[in-house]
Amino acid sequence: MANLPASIEIKEEGPREGFQYEKGQIPTQRKIELIDALSQTGLRHIATVSFVDPRRVPGMADAEAVVNGMTPNPDVTYSALALNKRGLERALATGRVRVGGAILLVTTEAFVKINLNRSKAEQLAAQPAMIQLLKEHHLPIESIGIMAAFGCNYEGPVTTRCVLDLISDALGVAAEHDLTIRRINLADTMGWATPLQIKRLVGAVQDRFPEIEVMLHLHDTRGMGIANAFAGLEMGVRRFDAAVAGLGGCPFAHNKGAAGNVCTEDLVFMCEEMGVETGVDLDALIECAILAEDVVGHPLPGSVKIGGSLRRLREKLVPAA
Amino acid sequence: MANLPASIEIKEEGPREGFQYEKGQIPTQRKIELIDALSQTGLRHIATVSFVDPRRVPGMADAEAVVNGMTPNPDVTYSALALNKRGLERALATGRVRVGGAILLVTTEAFVKINLNRSKAEQLAAQPAMIQLLKEHHLPIESIGIMAAFGCNYEGPVTTRCVLDLISDALGVAAEHDLTIRRINLADTMGWATPLQIKRLVGAVQDRFPEIEVMLHLHDTRGMGIANAFAGLEMGVRRFDAAVAGLGGCPFAHNKGAAGNVCTEDLVFMCEEMGVETGVDLDALIECAILAEDVVGHPLPGSVKIGGSLRRLREKLVPAA
Repeated sequence: MANLPASIEIKEEGPREGFQYEKGQIPTQRKIELIDALSQTGLRHIATVSFVDPRRVPGMADAEAVVNGMTPNPDVTYSALALNKRGLERALATGRVRVGGAILLVTTEAFVKINLNRSKAEQLAAQPAMIQLLKEHHLPIESIGIMAAFGCNYEGPVTTRCVLDLISDALGVAAEHDLTIRRINLADTMGWATPLQIKRLVGAVQDRFPEIEVMLHLHDTRGMGIANAFAGLEMGVRRFDAAVAGLGGCPFAHNKGAAGNVCTEDLVFMCEEMGVETGVDLDALIECAILAEDVVGHPLPGSVKIGGSLRRLREKLVPAA
Repeated sequence: MANLPASIEIKEEGPREGFQYEKGQIPTQRKIELIDALSQTGLRHIATVSFVDPRRVPGMADAEAVVNGMTPNPDVTYSALALNKRGLERALATGRVRVGGAILLVTTEAFVKINLNRSKAEQLAAQPAMIQLLKEHHLPIESIGIMAAFGCNYEGPVTTRCVLDLISDALGVAAEHDLTIRRINLADTMGWATPLQIKRLVGAVQDRFPEIEVMLHLHDTRGMGIANAFAGLEMGVRRFDAAVAGLGGCPFAHNKGAAGNVCTEDLVFMCEEMGVETGVDLDALIECAILAEDVVGHPLPGSVKIGGSLRRLREKLVPAA
């Protein structure tokens, strides 16, 4: 029988992943509205924006305005993505967001070429400069992110061996800079994983690096997101990225129009119903999912926002005293 | 690590469950078109229509015309639902469909009252008449179906004890009529189940009735369908009902507009990617899912029809010789 963790921690990726790839510009005020609503649900970590080149990602051109406009909840960690010096400096200048200190690596030559115009050797060689930059700003670097850990639209299936080798490479770089890596985030960037693969790869990484916690970043491109999260829970995974209403879309070739990140409220529903605590008020989160649909102006993939929570149903079933 | 079955059998419920609750009349010819397309995918069992009162279910008023219009594939079993003498006689008169011989029972007083205007005692007392009728037509009765096995919108959670007692009651009736029950179909009729509940209830039923095979009929009301199917696979379940594109909707109070049955092509994708054989050509099934959306005239919930199969992607990745 499944032996599930008592609780999990969810990083809400909806605002960052979601607004990045939406067609057309979403008003800054509406982005702020969603972030502020999410901050009242019990979620403890919200990824807000990416500080990236507005010519490449026009949807993030208002990153400063979003971050400066939100009303911080002191119980919530707000983070932002920055991939270079310029982005980092922009993020830090706001004084309001944490910048993720992670060694991010892509599994396949084809994807790293398309994504960053580098080879895998070059992406590894580029890490020390970013580490140095983060160190200069006294930012901790405690995690490794492996993108396309389960498969790649440009190169096909990714082997366990490839992922383990890449983690070893990253740990080598970390050791050279006296960093202690506490977490490995396995990202199913293009939605190739099945629950069985999740169990196999998470298990292999846990076996090889038992002192490091494994996290999951799951895309729901082919509808496997919740099943993959369950498989992760069964392997003892306690940290998940997710996106309210399944925001995020899929920017990759062959999958345009597909679902985004695993849906936060569906994940919270599953966990809470199984006795795995999330700290999140599901009904408040469902309201956020409905708000998210209104903000982007088109249907989003999450199911619980339509099917409804069982808590409400149970309350209706109890006769009034 | 998961120990999954080598293969599964899927009963395609899309035409029957799907066309039952669609708003507006779908042209008979289009229903036939979908059934005939499904019959060419490798699916071995298709539930075609319900022979029910057309005043109660207008979408099934053309049941005879659908069944008589389809082009049977000799490798496919076509079935129909009949819940009384009139329905059974209509179905048998076509000479083209198998009528399911099952003892169907609902778990809760509230749901059986709403559904059939009976009490639970009355639904049990009504079984011998239906069994007698099926016997008169020499139809085998080999399965028990438990509806709302995991929870009920009108009465709340359903206990394992309640389900086990109901199965015992059904087996008692079966024994009185010299029937050998080979399968128990646990139906999550209103989408209350989580993967953990699936494991617990399936495990409890297997423990108590080890000689009887457990099947699953999963609704995707709250997005748990695929995760629940995975949990079932982990418990050794080998037979699933499913609906192409997630057809079916949800007719129950509180869930109108929600998803229908677990999506066949998403289930096939998961299984095939995990090495669990389904016998189904996924790409042909995806074409059926796209056809199903065209037939009903609105988006349907399945994911793989948008995200695409990996087989196609892998083929594109292999350089031409």
